[in-house]
Amino acid sequence: MNKRLFNTLPALLLAAGTLAGAAPAPAPNGIELPAGYRDWRMLGVSHRTDNSTLRVILGNPAAIEAARAGQTRPWPDGVILAKLVWKDAVHPAWAAATVPGEIVQAEFMVKDAEKYRDTGGWGFARWKGLDQTPYGKDAGFVQECFGCHTPVRDNDYVFTHPAALP
Amino acid sequence: MNKRLFNTLPALLLAAGTLAGAAPAPAPNGIELPAGYRDWRMLGVSHRTDNSTLRVILGNPAAIEAARAGQTRPWPDGVILAKLVWKDAVHPAWAAATVPGEIVQAEFMVKDAEKYRDTGGWGFARWKGLDQTPYGKDAGFVQECFGCHTPVRDNDYVFTHPAALP
Repeated sequence: MNKRLFNTLPALLLAAGTLAGAAPAPAPNGIELPAGYRDWRMLGVSHRTDNSTLRVILGNPAAIEAARAGQTRPWPDGVILAKLVWKDAVHPAWAAATVPGEIVQAEFMVKDAEKYRDTGGWGFARWKGLDQTPYGKDAGFVQECFGCHTPVRDNDYVFTHPAALP
Repeated sequence: MNKRLFNTLPALLLAAGTLAGAAPAPAPNGIELPAGYRDWRMLGVSHRTDNSTLRVILGNPAAIEAARAGQTRPWPDGVILAKLVWKDAVHPAWAAATVPGEIVQAEFMVKDAEKYRDTGGWGFARWKGLDQTPYGKDAGFVQECFGCHTPVRDNDYVFTHPAALP
């Protein structure tokens, strides 16, 4: 290791540490990436063959409580649903198994019936890729989200039906 | 309601309550259904087209800690992996989405390198259906589990590669 690099190393490590610890930018509508969502519990899973993605749906503690009590039409205020999306990959040792490949995005629905009354009571946000770039050029991006969720308006605009758990 | 049924009702309710609260029978090799697995965090997901099932893989706290530290070859003692398996169903509002239908089984791998040294350091157990009937006629059932996991011996006999999390 040359001396210049050696002298610079602590600063580089510090910069990398800062970068790794920095929160991603908020979505264009002001929604912040929910803290701790990686530790939320599972509500469901899906596989979309129209865009070759696997998804897991997680819920914050309020969502898990609501789901287990059957309170999902509507979901109560305070609930946050997370959908983690990966590109399809083939399991290296089991060709008939589709498994998560590259991460595509993490999507969130935040329930606040009053604050988000123009979009069914839900605030929408999405962060793309491992570096979690916020999706959308301006706050109008939510119309795309809301439009796609309109077919499930009878299920409080939520595609996920919590999976039966033994 | 006739009188005989009315008189019997408290006993019936008590019996149902006991049934609902009772732990399922242990697996034929003595492994008990791990407590609290419904609240474990997510390690991965898969979709098998050879038997039309969707799966989510959860880990106990030791498993989540090991996965995030990259300690999966081998996984340390104390780790328990859970795989929840559902039959494929079609989302009622999105025909190209496969979602969980009926529950098939909950499967577990319990890591104890010494105790389970004859089966790669893993104890296997499976409970079928919503009523969680233990799988296997006798303790020899684990040979079926172990045989199926042998192709992934280089991955500590585990099919699951923890999914990349943003």
